[in-house]
Amino acid sequence: MRAEILSCGTELLLGHISDTNATYLEQSLAPLGIDLYFVSHVGDNLERLVDTLRRAWDRSDLIIMTGGLGPTEDDLAREAISTLLGETMQVDPELEAQLRARFARMDAVMPERNLKQATLIPSASSLSNPVGSAPGWWVEKDGRILVAMPGVPREMYRMWENEAVPRLSPYTGGKIFTRILRVYGMGESTVEEKLDHLIHNTNPTVATYAKMDAVDARITAKAATSEEAERLVAEIEVLARQALGDYVFGTDKDTLASVVGTLLQARGQTLGVMESLTGGFLSSAITDFQTSSSLFIGGLVAYSTDLKAQLGVPRETLDRYGVVSDETARAMAHATREFLGTDFGIGVTGVAGPDEQEDKPVGTVYIAIEGPEGVVSGTGPGWRAGRSENKRHAALTALNMLRRYLEGQLTPE
Amino acid sequence: MRAEILSCGTELLLGHISDTNATYLEQSLAPLGIDLYFVSHVGDNLERLVDTLRRAWDRSDLIIMTGGLGPTEDDLAREAISTLLGETMQVDPELEAQLRARFARMDAVMPERNLKQATLIPSASSLSNPVGSAPGWWVEKDGRILVAMPGVPREMYRMWENEAVPRLSPYTGGKIFTRILRVYGMGESTVEEKLDHLIHNTNPTVATYAKMDAVDARITAKAATSEEAERLVAEIEVLARQALGDYVFGTDKDTLASVVGTLLQARGQTLGVMESLTGGFLSSAITDFQTSSSLFIGGLVAYSTDLKAQLGVPRETLDRYGVVSDETARAMAHATREFLGTDFGIGVTGVAGPDEQEDKPVGTVYIAIEGPEGVVSGTGPGWRAGRSENKRHAALTALNMLRRYLEGQLTPE
Repeated sequence: MRAEILSCGTELLLGHISDTNATYLEQSLAPLGIDLYFVSHVGDNLERLVDTLRRAWDRSDLIIMTGGLGPTEDDLAREAISTLLGETMQVDPELEAQLRARFARMDAVMPERNLKQATLIPSASSLSNPVGSAPGWWVEKDGRILVAMPGVPREMYRMWENEAVPRLSPYTGGKIFTRILRVYGMGESTVEEKLDHLIHNTNPTVATYAKMDAVDARITAKAATSEEAERLVAEIEVLARQALGDYVFGTDKDTLASVVGTLLQARGQTLGVMESLTGGFLSSAITDFQTSSSLFIGGLVAYSTDLKAQLGVPRETLDRYGVVSDETARAMAHATREFLGTDFGIGVTGVAGPDEQEDKPVGTVYIAIEGPEGVVSGTGPGWRAGRSENKRHAALTALNMLRRYLEGQLTPE
Repeated sequence: MRAEILSCGTELLLGHISDTNATYLEQSLAPLGIDLYFVSHVGDNLERLVDTLRRAWDRSDLIIMTGGLGPTEDDLAREAISTLLGETMQVDPELEAQLRARFARMDAVMPERNLKQATLIPSASSLSNPVGSAPGWWVEKDGRILVAMPGVPREMYRMWENEAVPRLSPYTGGKIFTRILRVYGMGESTVEEKLDHLIHNTNPTVATYAKMDAVDARITAKAATSEEAERLVAEIEVLARQALGDYVFGTDKDTLASVVGTLLQARGQTLGVMESLTGGFLSSAITDFQTSSSLFIGGLVAYSTDLKAQLGVPRETLDRYGVVSDETARAMAHATREFLGTDFGIGVTGVAGPDEQEDKPVGTVYIAIEGPEGVVSGTGPGWRAGRSENKRHAALTALNMLRRYLEGQLTPE
């Protein structure tokens, strides 16, 4: 079933509101096994609405319209559908009675212009809207289905779930299952290269997406039953994990912070950090994980050199190797464990810019982690554009290093 | 000039991401005097992309595409444009050199598939992208203009403002001047209410936008000369500032952190923070400001009660008033100044959830600031949905309190 969404409203084209209705419907269609091919926004103009509807009618089996069902002159969804199908809108007595009753309940007189909210055409039946004045239209004609719903999100969500989805069940054969593998430490194009042999599959499909905190490899299968779809995904997941190896840090809604937090909780161990370059971002990423209070003792944002010394980084190390050095990162990790009494300490130092420091270029990053099994250290991910970007990538690299330490993928000294 | 937006990406149709790019562009086009007639989302499918492009080419003067410029096989924007125009993509030596240099800077080997990001067609010139690997395309042919930009929002915003908008100036007739007033501490609808008498103006126009870190009131004028446009904006700015008062913390690209940083620099004073609820977010917000190193000495993320005591918060205060209290926030601010030797100390404490603490509900926030003139304190902004949202709002409220302290709007005890 080929579906298409049409969002009506000049306020969308002016950017006064975002089309969250489309996002909601998109998320609902995929699991129903309905393929969505197009989304369009059209202003409140009858000619352009009819043109866009006609094209949708020609190429799609299911058209979902939102907006344009209000009582005012620029609410033109009903008029556009009637024009498209060459049918005449007529007031439906039952809908009119409901509408008048609604106004009576609110002790209000119904403006006569509202009467158009009680109209139907011969091909349309109404979709009830208990939380608003505009009923929806369910249109079936020439093997096509058109659903017109109000633009107010809470009215639309309710009408979609309670009225439209049940009517669609005869057409939604097949169940969908999706698994996301979350990958850190490889760019999107490298992930795709590694998955090249799987990406041309049609069922399950495999696709990559660059996110702020990781690259996602998404495996989606469609089958007669949920169990069968899940089994198809599981087969491909094994192959994808073989190709991506230790770079996969989690699945679905996992974050590096949640994975590290869960690993530390399982060990009953605690964490502290001392950060300069990342300036608090690393602590903040860790504390986004909701049960971090039990395992994260604290963070020390040691922006000045004196503060590093005050917190236990030896002056000698700072003087001899420089603030931006592997030795200082290690000393920071060690001082963190001492000062905070934690099982693990992370030290992150580097040059945040805009100026060079100790002849080291902007973007230099050193990370060290000290834990019960010893120390690991490494350099950061290379400079990204902008200060906050660089802070994020350095913090994520530190969390990924801790994850690999905890999972036994790194050998501590 | 009739414009149309085309957002490419199957992830849009699956609802995995919302099309915030379209909203951004819509907001930008209205003040330029460019009329937007259609917005479409299309998946990563060459045939459907070309079809949609062809229709756009037939009915619009300006087509703005976002997405589909990545290096992978499902990034098909360039291929679709080339097919539409019957032109052949060729590697541009200069773009190739830039791309290879970018990978070299990151100490990475460029996957060969990335080379397609260095291609052009005869009708296209490139739009530079200093913050990403994909340059944009600026296509002029047969009286039409097509702008293709990356889908990553921060890359797209920058390219649109710095590269595309200046090239559009011959078509937008007249000069545009925009001034944004940045507002903190009021919701968007309150800002709109206060500006009600200005919002129905047509030149300058006044519109409000809710951003992650503030509400923006955007004043835009169009006139024959830049000077005239600027004069028109200045007149309205005076009235808008009268209506909004001290809630305006800055203009244009200012952030609360940059305003506070600039005020502290002017006084030659330093800052330190002790935060628990905000978990590092406050330090991170401050260190996003690029010259923070000279004024921000450090941050103490004191997540555990013992660590607060270790850093100088009296045990008596913690025991008597509780960790989540005005008294503890004040003691944290004081201890920060003592421990870090700074002119100003901020203390933030509260209940981050998911569980209540000391019988105080999730979302309780106490903030205190101690400086040379004395102490101010207050409660936070009330609970927002989700842990990271709440951290952000509490941190921004603390920065706004410091701004008002530094600007003499608050009377320290």
